Amino acid sequence: MKRIKFEEMQTVIKQAFVNAGMTDETAEICARIHTESSCDGVYSHGLNRVARFVEYIHKNWVDINAEPELEKSIGSLEIYNGNLGPGILNAIFSMNRATELAKGHGIGLVALRNTTHWMRGGTYGWQAAGKGYIAICWTNTESSMPAWGAKTIGIGNNPFVVAVPHKNAPVVLDMAMSQFSYGKLQVTRLKNERLPFPGGFNKAGELTDVPGPIEETMRILPTGYWKGSGMAIMLDMVSALLSGGLSTAGIDKAGKGGCGRYNQVFIAIDPLKINTQDFIDKIVEETVQQIKSSEPATENGKIFYPGEQSLANRHENLQLGIPIDDGVWATVKELAGK
Amino acid sequence: MKRIKFEEMQTVIKQAFVNAGMTDETAEICARIHTESSCDGVYSHGLNRVARFVEYIHKNWVDINAEPELEKSIGSLEIYNGNLGPGILNAIFSMNRATELAKGHGIGLVALRNTTHWMRGGTYGWQAAGKGYIAICWTNTESSMPAWGAKTIGIGNNPFVVAVPHKNAPVVLDMAMSQFSYGKLQVTRLKNERLPFPGGFNKAGELTDVPGPIEETMRILPTGYWKGSGMAIMLDMVSALLSGGLSTAGIDKAGKGGCGRYNQVFIAIDPLKINTQDFIDKIVEETVQQIKSSEPATENGKIFYPGEQSLANRHENLQLGIPIDDGVWATVKELAGK
Repeated sequence: MKRIKFEEMQTVIKQAFVNAGMTDETAEICARIHTESSCDGVYSHGLNRVARFVEYIHKNWVDINAEPELEKSIGSLEIYNGNLGPGILNAIFSMNRATELAKGHGIGLVALRNTTHWMRGGTYGWQAAGKGYIAICWTNTESSMPAWGAKTIGIGNNPFVVAVPHKNAPVVLDMAMSQFSYGKLQVTRLKNERLPFPGGFNKAGELTDVPGPIEETMRILPTGYWKGSGMAIMLDMVSALLSGGLSTAGIDKAGKGGCGRYNQVFIAIDPLKINTQDFIDKIVEETVQQIKSSEPATENGKIFYPGEQSLANRHENLQLGIPIDDGVWATVKELAGK
Repeated sequence: MKRIKFEEMQTVIKQAFVNAGMTDETAEICARIHTESSCDGVYSHGLNRVARFVEYIHKNWVDINAEPELEKSIGSLEIYNGNLGPGILNAIFSMNRATELAKGHGIGLVALRNTTHWMRGGTYGWQAAGKGYIAICWTNTESSMPAWGAKTIGIGNNPFVVAVPHKNAPVVLDMAMSQFSYGKLQVTRLKNERLPFPGGFNKAGELTDVPGPIEETMRILPTGYWKGSGMAIMLDMVSALLSGGLSTAGIDKAGKGGCGRYNQVFIAIDPLKINTQDFIDKIVEETVQQIKSSEPATENGKIFYPGEQSLANRHENLQLGIPIDDGVWATVKELAGK
């Protein structure tokens, strides 16, 4: 497996973005986030996503010069129009505003409409919790999954992120509403393997752990069957109601597919307004401790807390370099003119 | 199947609560909520739960005279000590405060510590959304489920509720973090049936849809495997950090089991501060419409939106009476002295 140093990856991605017309400053931020995602092991939304983002810039699906625009301010709530700017920049801005509002009001909520793909949702949880805030955020998307009981797609695979701070490292949950991502199906199929659990339905309408037939039907399984389906529906509606943006149904009608017009919700709460850092650390530590001291389900099995594996990947990849796919790396280098 | 009229059930439950020492007013409210839960088809937390609540009063695990006490107020955030009062009363009070805060600030968050079982979580979603608010609320609990990868219990089966208003009827998601409740396992076992999907692990560590062996191991399955497990952990920590109360680990150490010292978080947002009623109704309707117009997975299969089945049960049970178990009904009548 080939590995690339963090700095090298970030430099190359940044150049690709500058070549696509971004400013030095905005290219730097977006390159850092893509590199961090790969470094944390979320390869699907890191380096692997760079070429598609550049393609969307060229198609004018993402406006690299757009900035979020305040549409409404109500106490600790703010609503922004993302103006189809780069999803990463809009989301970083919004979570930052939510933490600023929380500094003043205890809680801050920023709703962002008309934005584009924020890449890895967890980014914004790590961002806020790294600064000491509790964070909850999510996005809606175009539909890519059937509602529970349906055969045809109708709901978004909307990621949901919850993060809490800790003096050493935050605890961050980053979960999409499908049991497995299309990325996971693809990787598993290419390895000729089966999914660890059923991940969707085949043509005969049977649940299966073989990825290929699920990719064909697009009948990917909502996590927890009706539960993930219901949660996807609610996250979508709340994001549209808070931001004044398009629902998944509205995005589907607008028709541009994966390019955007998403809504996102960013909630930040300042826990130091309520309790001490010691209390915060104690709650996190006793919770992690309780999980870790459970009897493992399998011999020598490990029990992870949310975000622990990202952190482990980060440490390993910062030291050894970030694993890359040769083809993907070559494409991005080409975009960077290197 | 025997059915009891709503009014009769409420009157009998109220008398049982008055006999246990509650005031006319508080008994009336708690009786209404238990009756509404049964009426909506959530039998496990309605009539079926009355005797256990009375038992907890007698054991002094619930203080029927306690009232929530404001501990801290920070802008649109309020923190209350529930003083181990009746969970239903504390939760109704808290969600009501959250909506009042939202009226002023756009958003309101009430964190309640040291409270007792709120019965059906959805109650407070219906409460807020029925008044026109978007609501998100959850509770932590003692541990009753193994974390993903663990054999022994260590995390709470913490319900999570999201509700949005609509001019006709709210849309309400009420989901616990296990795939199936212990109540569902029991009912399925008594009918000698299998669960619709695997619901936990048997002694050999295999996933099974046979309820009995899961009840034995207590290795109930988190919804979506690692996802429901992670979400349960986050909901627990956030509730403790916001309220200053006990984490699941802390509740377990305190040792009184199912009786309380739970924390709950109630978030309300006033969508009319952001958009018009017409916009709200349009978003809800187009979302429901999109799901409903999907092709059903099975011939003549139905696709439900969150809360739709509760509403259907409500209509049927208000008309025909609420189905009861003879034994349960006899016990509650006895408690009512009837």
